[in-house]
Formats: sequence, structure tokens, C-alpha cells
Amino acid sequence: MDALALQADKFGAPLTPTVIHRRSRRPDDVEIRVSYCGICHSDLHALHTSPHDGGAFPLVPGHEFVGKVTAVGEEVTEFHVGDSVAVGNIVDSCGTCRMCQAGQENFCENFPTLTYAGRDRVDGTPTLGAYATRYIAKEHFVYHVPPSLDPAAVAPLMCAGITVWEPLRSAGVGPGTRLGVVGLGGLGHLAVKLGRALGADVTVFTTSPNKIDDARELGADHVVISRDDEAMAAHRATLDVVIDTVSVEHDLAPYLHTLDLDGTLFSLGYLGPITVSTIDLLVGRKRLASAGSGGHRYTQDLLGFCGEHNVTADIEIVLPEDVEHAFERLRSNDVRYRFVLDLSTFGDDNAVLS
Amino acid sequence: MDALALQADKFGAPLTPTVIHRRSRRPDDVEIRVSYCGICHSDLHALHTSPHDGGAFPLVPGHEFVGKVTAVGEEVTEFHVGDSVAVGNIVDSCGTCRMCQAGQENFCENFPTLTYAGRDRVDGTPTLGAYATRYIAKEHFVYHVPPSLDPAAVAPLMCAGITVWEPLRSAGVGPGTRLGVVGLGGLGHLAVKLGRALGADVTVFTTSPNKIDDARELGADHVVISRDDEAMAAHRATLDVVIDTVSVEHDLAPYLHTLDLDGTLFSLGYLGPITVSTIDLLVGRKRLASAGSGGHRYTQDLLGFCGEHNVTADIEIVLPEDVEHAFERLRSNDVRYRFVLDLSTFGDDNAVLS
Repeated sequence: MDALALQADKFGAPLTPTVIHRRSRRPDDVEIRVSYCGICHSDLHALHTSPHDGGAFPLVPGHEFVGKVTAVGEEVTEFHVGDSVAVGNIVDSCGTCRMCQAGQENFCENFPTLTYAGRDRVDGTPTLGAYATRYIAKEHFVYHVPPSLDPAAVAPLMCAGITVWEPLRSAGVGPGTRLGVVGLGGLGHLAVKLGRALGADVTVFTTSPNKIDDARELGADHVVISRDDEAMAAHRATLDVVIDTVSVEHDLAPYLHTLDLDGTLFSLGYLGPITVSTIDLLVGRKRLASAGSGGHRYTQDLLGFCGEHNVTADIEIVLPEDVEHAFERLRSNDVRYRFVLDLSTFGDDNAVLS
Repeated sequence: MDALALQADKFGAPLTPTVIHRRSRRPDDVEIRVSYCGICHSDLHALHTSPHDGGAFPLVPGHEFVGKVTAVGEEVTEFHVGDSVAVGNIVDSCGTCRMCQAGQENFCENFPTLTYAGRDRVDGTPTLGAYATRYIAKEHFVYHVPPSLDPAAVAPLMCAGITVWEPLRSAGVGPGTRLGVVGLGGLGHLAVKLGRALGADVTVFTTSPNKIDDARELGADHVVISRDDEAMAAHRATLDVVIDTVSVEHDLAPYLHTLDLDGTLFSLGYLGPITVSTIDLLVGRKRLASAGSGGHRYTQDLLGFCGEHNVTADIEIVLPEDVEHAFERLRSNDVRYRFVLDLSTFGDDNAVLS
């Protein structure tokens, strides 16, 4: 099967419309006509910041998307043609290790197959992402979109959303939890919305005074300008859980200080080495944690919760021809709060997709 | 009131028997004839490794001790002359901050008063420790020794014991918890005994093959030589909680790798900066934590538990004249597993203590 995709031929190259080949459908596969795909920081990173790995180019990004089912393999039981579905950043895993058995395929001991820049577990070909008209994925990694929600605004739940949801849920955030959210971007704004919907009292930490009103509209009960030492001091030892979504290296001490007894700080955005003072952890018996992406168990949980509580991402729709401009704006954090690529009318579908 | 103490005049100087002055009894004070005082690594540190602070010398160490009540202030309600009592490394705190109100005086926001090398909150004089015949402490920081236990072996519970107990308890260690203990010293051996008494399945990590039998006798279900890469790999992702008691800087990654989903590593022994890879935390959604010393709530809990389950430290009794030799041995980790200073017949008590 062919698809029209936005593909980069090499590291640093722009995305250009290219016809790509998708593998044939297997018995447990779902074929999807992609309609919307979120633009994640990782996409920018893979294309322009860090040469992923030797085998990753040509590269088609895109790992948080929604679409309609166009065909299913004969073993597929949960999906039918026409269903509205969503896929995140994992499309396969070993299925047998303890993490997979626990529904945490994101931590698969044999490494999960990424939606793009991964390798298909059956035929070894590189996976190509969902900045494309079509995608084929194993049923287990496909999810139903709650019918009450705008599909375009659901797409970012599949990466940005699940990345904040697993820590929120596993930390037991609920009514009365005092939750801090550091950084108000794609992940942060969803942490605020989800935290609020869970019943938490939400404090947002941002460096941008011009995001104060936004934060409140998203549901924040308190907003703190993190560069204001006095304001930070006033929030010392006031929080149970902090979700730090800042994707560049920064000092975690000011946020550890906002934690109360037995509190937990999740560092989600930055993936390098972290240094903390033991004393900052010791006083108040605090925990430093991380998390990333999501497994089957929590992804289903998230979509169910969002359907019930009417939570989706705040998005700005981008047409395929404007994708490079969207990257430019993403680079300078000029997005409120997630770009979503509209692929619903991409290309001359009937001609290209045989 | 005078007491005979083992005092060091200056940093690096040996401990010599010296008559010291204790403050007069206040209405909420308990006067104690010290009988046994544990020898903690901190004592060695304060005397010989790091000049504590300018005001700490002359210094009398000792912050985990037991003794008999010899007098009580008029407001004291919980203790009577002749009671067998224990004191840990905190003898006062502000009493009003949220941490104190929560029974976590060890995290007092206005800093707790240490049993030695601290400053009395009323008169500002330096506190002198319990390598001495007598001590005076505020009732709130004095605890009853369970009558079923050997008092000498209870002394180390008050610092080494409570330091491992707070993480064990706050992490919910209980029947079936898969607990790792790194290092088999004063703290480690108590973590094994307490973990076992709580019903956990205990794995000890040690660099010393000659501690394998000891570890099993203390109650370890499994013993791993941490320098054996194959053995470490076999324990990958097998534990829920790890208590790391090693007091020198070391790589935490091998122990983070032993944690299963949502597991927690408590680093207790080393107080400097810690660097970890975010990915090591991310995969499996692990937590890095610390803890130190203990507050009223957990100290009472610990002593009650130890009385009920007959848990005390494995000790070696040291006479006051041999204290420097004990420090030498402590320096080379030649102790199984805690030295306890026998002060019960120290000095000519009747003559010195007026």
C-alpha cells in the first residue's frame, strides 16, 4: 500500500510530500486513513537537532495521530471499518516480558517499536510516522477515540497527554492533591487540564508572565512566575506532586523545595543526566522520578477519562504546506499549546492511495 | 549538674574524660543517667573528617543512647524516676511548623536542635552529646525502651534504626514487598532485620563475600555480590524498594536497574550531590529518594514494633578507654554491626555527679 507522506531525506532537510510504501496488512493489523497528527517536540528533535540513528533517514515523523479505520486483518476483533481511532508513539513490543504483560509496553524489556524511526519487529524495515495519509498498526496499539471529543484535539493526548497521565495516575493524583506543573507547553497545558479534571489544586510555574491568564483559563488555581524568588519562597513545601515538563537542562532544586513531606517531582521533559543535592531529597523525604510515553493500560484509562471529563488538547491546526513554519514557531515556543497537522485532505487521495 | 564525658578539645583531637556542665533542669526536662551510647559514623565524621562548624568544639559526640531517668521536671507526665529511656539525634525543634506538627521534627523548618554540636533553643549554649554519664533532654524527645529488649542493643535503633525505618514505613514495606538493602553496616543490618520482621523478601547487596553468611543469619533471603555483573543482571527489575546505606559516593545506576515498575531507591548513607540518568528513572517509572534520622511519630512506631518483634541491633560493647580503638576499626568497617559504648560504670559516679 502506498501513502503520501511528509518526508525528510536526510538530517536537517525539509519535509517534502513523498509517496512512501507501507507494508502489507497482517492478520492483526488495522489500516488507518490518518486525519490529524500532533506535532511533537521529538519530531523537531529527530529532524533538526540530533541525528537519531544511521537508519532513521529518510524519516517521516508523527507519533500522535487519529484517523478512520479503512480495513482490518482477519484476526482483528476490536475495530471495524469506519471506526475513529488513535495511535501513540509505540506500535509494537515483545508482548511477553513482564512490562508488556503489565500493560506497560513503553518499558518493554526488549524495547518497544517506535511509531517512526523504529524497526518493524517482523520484517525489520524502518517504521515511518504519521505525517502521512495512511498508517498500518497492530490492533493492540490502536485505541478508540471517545465519540464525544474532537478527534483533532485528541491526537496530542496520545503522546503529550499520556506522558503526563502516567505520572499523575501512578502518583495517585486526585481530589485535593496539591499539584504543581512546571512549564506551560504541550505537556504542561495537558497536565493542568488533567490535574484539574482529577480534582487537584493546581499551581503552574512559568517563566512567562504573559501566560498567567492562559494558565488560569486552563484551570490553574495558582500561577507562580518561577523567576520571582519571593513567590517561589512563598510556595515552599506546599505541593504533593510536581510535574516538570521543561525540556532543557535546569536546576530542579527550586521545585524540590516546593514539595511537602513525601512529595514527588516528576522530571518529564529533559532526558539527560540530572544532579540533585541529597539534602534536598532528604529534608521532607522527597522523591525524584521520571516517566515517558505510555502503555496500553494507562492509554485506555486516559482516553476513557478524557471522554468522560471532556478533556482534550488546546490546538492550532496546521496545513501540510505550513509544517516548516510550524517548526519555526515551535522552536521559539510560539504555540498554544499543540500544533496538529491536518492530513484529512492531504494529496489527491484517490490517485495516490492504491 | 556536672557529668563525666568523653570530649575532644579540637578537631582531630582524641576523646579524653572531661567533666562537663549540663544546664539545669527545666519543667519539661528529663534527667538521664546514660548507660549505653551507640557509636555512629557521624561521630567519627564530626571528630576527624570534617570540621563541623566553628562552635562545635570542644565536642562530646553521641546521639543514640539509652539510660535510666534520675529526675523529672514538674511538667513531665510520661516519665518517672527509674524508667528505662532512649534518645536519638534530635533533642528539640520549633514545635510549631508543619513538619513538627506532623511528628517529623527531623525536618523542622526552623532546623531541629541536634543532640550534640547543636545549640540549645533556650540559652543558646552548644549541645554536648551522650558519650557521657548524664544527659538532660526535653520530654518530647525522650522515649520509653520496650522492657523486653536489651537496652544496649536498643541504643543504635535511635539513629541507625530510625534512619532506615522511616523509608521502610513511608514506602509501605510489608508482607511480600521485594526489598533490597545495599551495604551491610550499622544501617544496613538493621534494614535487613526490620525488613524481614515486616514480612519483606530481602535481598542484600554487598561487596564483601565474607558477609554472605552474616546476611543470611540476619534474615536476608538472597545475597548478591554487587561486583558480580552477572549476578546483578540476574536481579534486574526484581525489587520494589531499595535502601542504599553506602556512605561514600557511588554509582546508583546498578541499583536503579534492580527496581521493578514504580520502585523506589532510598539513598541514605551519602549526603553529597547525586547524579542519575533520567532514562534510568524513566524506564519503569522509578523514584530516587532520601531520608534521614527520624521524628517523634516514626520513632515511637519503631520502638513499639521492635518491642513486639524482638528486633535490636547486633552490637559489640566498647569500654570508654577503648573508644579510639573502636573508631580505628569503624574506619575500616571492622564492626558487626554497631559499637555501643558502655557508660554504665564510667567514672566514679558518686563523686563526679553532684
